[in-house]
Amino acid sequence: MTDTDAETLAERVRDGELRLYELEDHADAETAAAARRHLLAEETGVDLDVIGEYAFDAADAEPNIENMVGAAQIPMGVAGPLPIDGGAAEGEHYLPMATTEGALLASVNRGVSTIRTAGGATARVLKSGMTRAPVFKVEDVAAAGEVSAWVREHVGDLAEAAEATTSHGELQDVEPYVVGDNVFLRFSYDTKDAMGMNMATIATEAACEVVERETSADLVALSGNLCSDKKPAAINAIEGRGRTVAADVLIPHEQVEERLDTTTEAIVEANTRKNLVGSAKAGALGFNAHAANVVAAAFLALGQDAAQVVEGSNAITTVDAREDGLYASVTIASLEVGTVGGGTGLPTQAEALDVLGYAGGGDPAGSNADALAEVIATGALAGELSLLAALSSRHLSSAHAELGR
Amino acid sequence: MTDTDAETLAERVRDGELRLYELEDHADAETAAAARRHLLAEETGVDLDVIGEYAFDAADAEPNIENMVGAAQIPMGVAGPLPIDGGAAEGEHYLPMATTEGALLASVNRGVSTIRTAGGATARVLKSGMTRAPVFKVEDVAAAGEVSAWVREHVGDLAEAAEATTSHGELQDVEPYVVGDNVFLRFSYDTKDAMGMNMATIATEAACEVVERETSADLVALSGNLCSDKKPAAINAIEGRGRTVAADVLIPHEQVEERLDTTTEAIVEANTRKNLVGSAKAGALGFNAHAANVVAAAFLALGQDAAQVVEGSNAITTVDAREDGLYASVTIASLEVGTVGGGTGLPTQAEALDVLGYAGGGDPAGSNADALAEVIATGALAGELSLLAALSSRHLSSAHAELGR
Amino acid sequence: MTDTDAETLAERVRDGELRLYELEDHADAETAAAARRHLLAEETGVDLDVIGEYAFDAADAEPNIENMVGAAQIPMGVAGPLPIDGGAAEGEHYLPMATTEGALLASVNRGVSTIRTAGGATARVLKSGMTRAPVFKVEDVAAAGEVSAWVREHVGDLAEAAEATTSHGELQDVEPYVVGDNVFLRFSYDTKDAMGMNMATIATEAACEVVERETSADLVALSGNLCSDKKPAAINAIEGRGRTVAADVLIPHEQVEERLDTTTEAIVEANTRKNLVGSAKAGALGFNAHAANVVAAAFLALGQDAAQVVEGSNAITTVDAREDGLYASVTIASLEVGTVGGGTGLPTQAEALDVLGYAGGGDPAGSNADALAEVIATGALAGELSLLAALSSRHLSSAHAELGR
Amino acid sequence: MTDTDAETLAERVRDGELRLYELEDHADAETAAAARRHLLAEETGVDLDVIGEYAFDAADAEPNIENMVGAAQIPMGVAGPLPIDGGAAEGEHYLPMATTEGALLASVNRGVSTIRTAGGATARVLKSGMTRAPVFKVEDVAAAGEVSAWVREHVGDLAEAAEATTSHGELQDVEPYVVGDNVFLRFSYDTKDAMGMNMATIATEAACEVVERETSADLVALSGNLCSDKKPAAINAIEGRGRTVAADVLIPHEQVEERLDTTTEAIVEANTRKNLVGSAKAGALGFNAHAANVVAAAFLALGQDAAQVVEGSNAITTVDAREDGLYASVTIASLEVGTVGGGTGLPTQAEALDVLGYAGGGDPAGSNADALAEVIATGALAGELSLLAALSSRHLSSAHAELGR
Repeated sequence: MTDTDAETLAERVRDGELRLYELEDHADAETAAAARRHLLAEETGVDLDVIGEYAFDAADAEPNIENMVGAAQIPMGVAGPLPIDGGAAEGEHYLPMATTEGALLASVNRGVSTIRTAGGATARVLKSGMTRAPVFKVEDVAAAGEVSAWVREHVGDLAEAAEATTSHGELQDVEPYVVGDNVFLRFSYDTKDAMGMNMATIATEAACEVVERETSADLVALSGNLCSDKKPAAINAIEGRGRTVAADVLIPHEQVEERLDTTTEAIVEANTRKNLVGSAKAGALGFNAHAANVVAAAFLALGQDAAQVVEGSNAITTVDAREDGLYASVTIASLEVGTVGGGTGLPTQAEALDVLGYAGGGDPAGSNADALAEVIATGALAGELSLLAALSSRHLSSAHAELGR
Repeated sequence: MTDTDAETLAERVRDGELRLYELEDHADAETAAAARRHLLAEETGVDLDVIGEYAFDAADAEPNIENMVGAAQIPMGVAGPLPIDGGAAEGEHYLPMATTEGALLASVNRGVSTIRTAGGATARVLKSGMTRAPVFKVEDVAAAGEVSAWVREHVGDLAEAAEATTSHGELQDVEPYVVGDNVFLRFSYDTKDAMGMNMATIATEAACEVVERETSADLVALSGNLCSDKKPAAINAIEGRGRTVAADVLIPHEQVEERLDTTTEAIVEANTRKNLVGSAKAGALGFNAHAANVVAAAFLALGQDAAQVVEGSNAITTVDAREDGLYASVTIASLEVGTVGGGTGLPTQAEALDVLGYAGGGDPAGSNADALAEVIATGALAGELSLLAALSSRHLSSAHAELGR
Repeated sequence: MTDTDAETLAERVRDGELRLYELEDHADAETAAAARRHLLAEETGVDLDVIGEYAFDAADAEPNIENMVGAAQIPMGVAGPLPIDGGAAEGEHYLPMATTEGALLASVNRGVSTIRTAGGATARVLKSGMTRAPVFKVEDVAAAGEVSAWVREHVGDLAEAAEATTSHGELQDVEPYVVGDNVFLRFSYDTKDAMGMNMATIATEAACEVVERETSADLVALSGNLCSDKKPAAINAIEGRGRTVAADVLIPHEQVEERLDTTTEAIVEANTRKNLVGSAKAGALGFNAHAANVVAAAFLALGQDAAQVVEGSNAITTVDAREDGLYASVTIASLEVGTVGGGTGLPTQAEALDVLGYAGGGDPAGSNADALAEVIATGALAGELSLLAALSSRHLSSAHAELGR
Repeated sequence: MTDTDAETLAERVRDGELRLYELEDHADAETAAAARRHLLAEETGVDLDVIGEYAFDAADAEPNIENMVGAAQIPMGVAGPLPIDGGAAEGEHYLPMATTEGALLASVNRGVSTIRTAGGATARVLKSGMTRAPVFKVEDVAAAGEVSAWVREHVGDLAEAAEATTSHGELQDVEPYVVGDNVFLRFSYDTKDAMGMNMATIATEAACEVVERETSADLVALSGNLCSDKKPAAINAIEGRGRTVAADVLIPHEQVEERLDTTTEAIVEANTRKNLVGSAKAGALGFNAHAANVVAAAFLALGQDAAQVVEGSNAITTVDAREDGLYASVTIASLEVGTVGGGTGLPTQAEALDVLGYAGGGDPAGSNADALAEVIATGALAGELSLLAALSSRHLSSAHAELGR
């Protein structure tokens, strides 16, 4: 590419010859992005110099973006080492996190250090399944009953059609839900190391053709919101989506005092009154202090879908004063993660996944994504411990004053 | 900085002389970050070369990150021009969006183009207030009643204390909520062009001292989850947090067919069965197709807090077949945005805000953040239109197959 | 009335001369009811002898029922004496409860006895207001903003119109909520000793005329479900409807063991794991064990609206192990009660209200309904204590086996 | 019984010889109840004459009440004939309803009449299962995973233990849910014609012994609120409890105008803006106008558990303008009904069930309770149609003014 090429291209857009989104058809991806920056600079008087200073090949980002102009750069830090005894994750982990919220990394790292002193955390993926739930319309509730019954008896046929579209995914179950003349079918897939939304969508479309052919149901929309993708929804908080994953730790009482500068009792009280009773009164689906902070920062660093932070916030934090220490746990009902596909192949994200140790497909398949889920849940646990400790010793705002903006 | 400096620093950490988070006390920010990359490379065998290729001064990111190693780079594209008749936003807008989800930009841009053809969207901020809700404990429900009554009568005193901590923020209201011996006070602030969480936290801490001094209440936690920050919670969906903002458009029926390749009736049906009935059955707080996608992508590009995508997903999409066209609206109950503070000062984010036209403090104060909210809501509207159209003409998955991963 | 009259009347219905619901126009209420029993007996072959043995004047029930055939008889028991230190309720109370659930009265009474031994409960009405929320449609979100602003500035005018329709009710507030082109106005009234739904509906209709006259808004429905009447809804659980009322008690640890056959720790654990964490995972708006049981039984005995048990279940139970005993509380967010109007004038219901001591209008106005709310909340507290104790000592099912069906 | 006996008994209580709840051990049930009325009259100065005029044998109510003093009498009316094409219900039905809410019967009956003119409603039970969900505690999340896995593999063993306690009930499924160190097991039973709570509780207790014996889990409470009984909870609204039942009707457009005094379009608009969008904004689990009114009135008349009106309000109403008429449906997710046990054997309730045609056990077993569910859902549909029509023609409050209290 030369600047001249980009300027020429920009001129052709200005002249109405080309549209902004068509530039990749007429130039390489770098040139197209440069041309857009030229045009935007002209239209808005703003240079996009730093946005243009991205450190990857524009062509490599084509599966991830259209109308590309460059990249957002978000500061990345690292928390760790974080010792985890997981179902898939094992040993010490450095967790990369990208965020603009001052004090977050420091706070999580304080929790990590506490967990490390306590001998490490335990983590487990408890349930797994990427869902897609098309909505069909039928004649009446009698037909709705018939279609539901047919589906329950023909999950095998639907699996055959669905799995023909994918080399990895497996249909685990299809659950019908009826509202009047609407039939929602919630398909759940094992998508191995992929987050799996697209796989699930494509496979479900094939299965829908079978449903339409064999029953009286008419497809209205391939997603009927019982999936439920990127919306706060109880169905995910209850039944899970992606990974349902939990992490916990037992911290001797004296370590609570030494490392967290508070007491087991104070943390239990803060958790009960804030995370349980407060969230109850708020009509919440998330009963935690700030799990979404860790989920978001890990998602940005590790190439996950930022909009799925929504589901990642369906987390419950519990704390218990046991005889031998403070027991604390975080359970995230619907953490949608993958180590292949999506943004995982972009350079900074791939490096970050490598640092964590779970880039690419796992052995066995699915184990890398399981491990990623376990690490994020443990990171969230660290964040919960640290914030609960800060709140119960009242220095949330002073911490922000020192470290934050 | 020289590599030698970084290596020396790394060695001192290895030797146990320094801790990973203390490096900025012994070297400039660039060197500290480089030292961490050295250490991580050693521990994990992974180069962090691209993560290290960030295009900003490490020192400038100090308010945003600790334990910095570099930056995550997320592809950024642009949608527009998007004509908006807003309460604060006015005219054509180019909306920068950063995402790794293929097809998203293209989809939003199709909606933008439809809105443009229809003559533009209308947008309004309908309510505004950043909240913080500490939880206190009291002796019994009689005391809870007394404390609540005292607070209702002394909002002025609390405002005085709260506002003494800030040059911009104004306390708008304090609402008490009681559960047994827990009293939650939901403070709501006008934080102008700042998203305002930290301002609200610090101001509330000062007000809490007054409450503790003047009543029998004891502070348990400065946040009691009725705020509610970064958790899915009905209180935000109902009462709002940050900006409650709505955008709508009226599209002539023939344009629906020409530009969206479907019909008004089909979109209405998809919206009712999916976004309303489906979300109802899902126990949702978000009645939309994928508003969080646009919120997340705009937040990443524009320096907003990625974890607050959670609240940004509390959105309701409505569609109505009017005589003169398809009416569509998106109302986001709790969109927490700012044009100053947080990540807005980082270089790529600042450039993106400049492209949009609302960087920094507005005139009058608050108008830039209002405008930002209106643009994001309108972007979400574009995304909803496009996805509803795709679903109702059944090509969601094929669009993904072509454009996505 | 004679049987002959009823038979003659029945014949006229059979002959198509009269319709079933018109009988009261042609005979007294007793005869009309008898005629319906004749007709039903003929149609279905079933005698309605016991249904016909009601102990009130049919004419007196005319405000409460149409197409009357008789009465349902539901066994009534009594719990007490229940000592309450309330804002309105004072002293010992016998609480009449009507139910068909075996073991319920016994269970509540065990709790009552525990409360009595502990020196009584404290109770308070914390908030009060009957709501009605019409939905209007407007042109677009700009108009929605204008209408909302107009309403906020003209609450006085709306109050004038609303209060002209009632001798008792006072409009306390009007809160606008916008979703696209829908404007919901939540009117809140002080309805004194009446539950107040009808008063609120009629007053709101008058206020709506003002809104329609003075703004561009068109009324779509006098209730837009943000009221929210007889539906499970977070808005009631958060903001309250009718009375927000709480009751609590402090029980010395040794009394917990003696009277409840368990320990403070066991009850705290059961409450946390079941009522807080379990309800959190269930996506609940009610965080209690069985508050609805007491609410329902008291409502049936005391002439309240049985369908409003729905809102009465928006209750949170908290338990805390204090140094000096087990602290337990129940807070019901939306308990809709009255001591005048509705079913309160029917004979068995009026007697039951008299037993309780709060029949008719209170002095000051509203104090009887306040007291009723406080007693029911305290009864619910008794029920919670007893069931938590039973669960924590594992004899729920054996209690049912002994006492229940 | 003689009055003398009752007075003597009362005296013994006054003298502290007996306790109020022990009277049945020393006299027959009638005398015990009379003695309590004496005592209450003395304590409160209030005669309980009408409460004492109940029309059943006190002894027969012993499974339903303790501390009995008499009965609450609630006016009962009848709606019908209501033609239903159901999975279990068939033909014309007279639906008895007991209520104190004026205008309700008239309103439902208007809907019934409309349904009749349209040729009747269709109804189906779509899912059935009474649930009970104990909560166990375990060591950590690893143990939680193991217990869950064990349960999934040993449902047969649990069924054997559970079913040994009951002659009718069948264990259908056990679903584990984990939150930290809490394991909830949601047992679902086919309880045939019984509502089945007690059956489910007793059977689950037996299964819990197996879980405790075979795994490391410790039972904390036999109900862990994921059941979820008598609480508003999304798990019931989504997955169902008792019967998930739906009813619908297609009404020719001209009949909408003639019989409901409004138009199809107006009803669709009211339903969308009120029941869908309004409930969405309210954070609701019930998307209907007043289904709970019909559920409550039918429950009181037919011997059902009044506190379970809570779950019965988890209903979604949909309306669609089809070419050939107005399609309307009501789907109740969790309607807990039975035709044997509970209050179904009391005289007025048994008569009412007989009028409906579904008293006692059905053939096949379960069909009577299915039919009861279908009739109530259809009654709710009638109520929805009537109220939506009234709202859309604006006469809700005038209807109340004429007919109501």
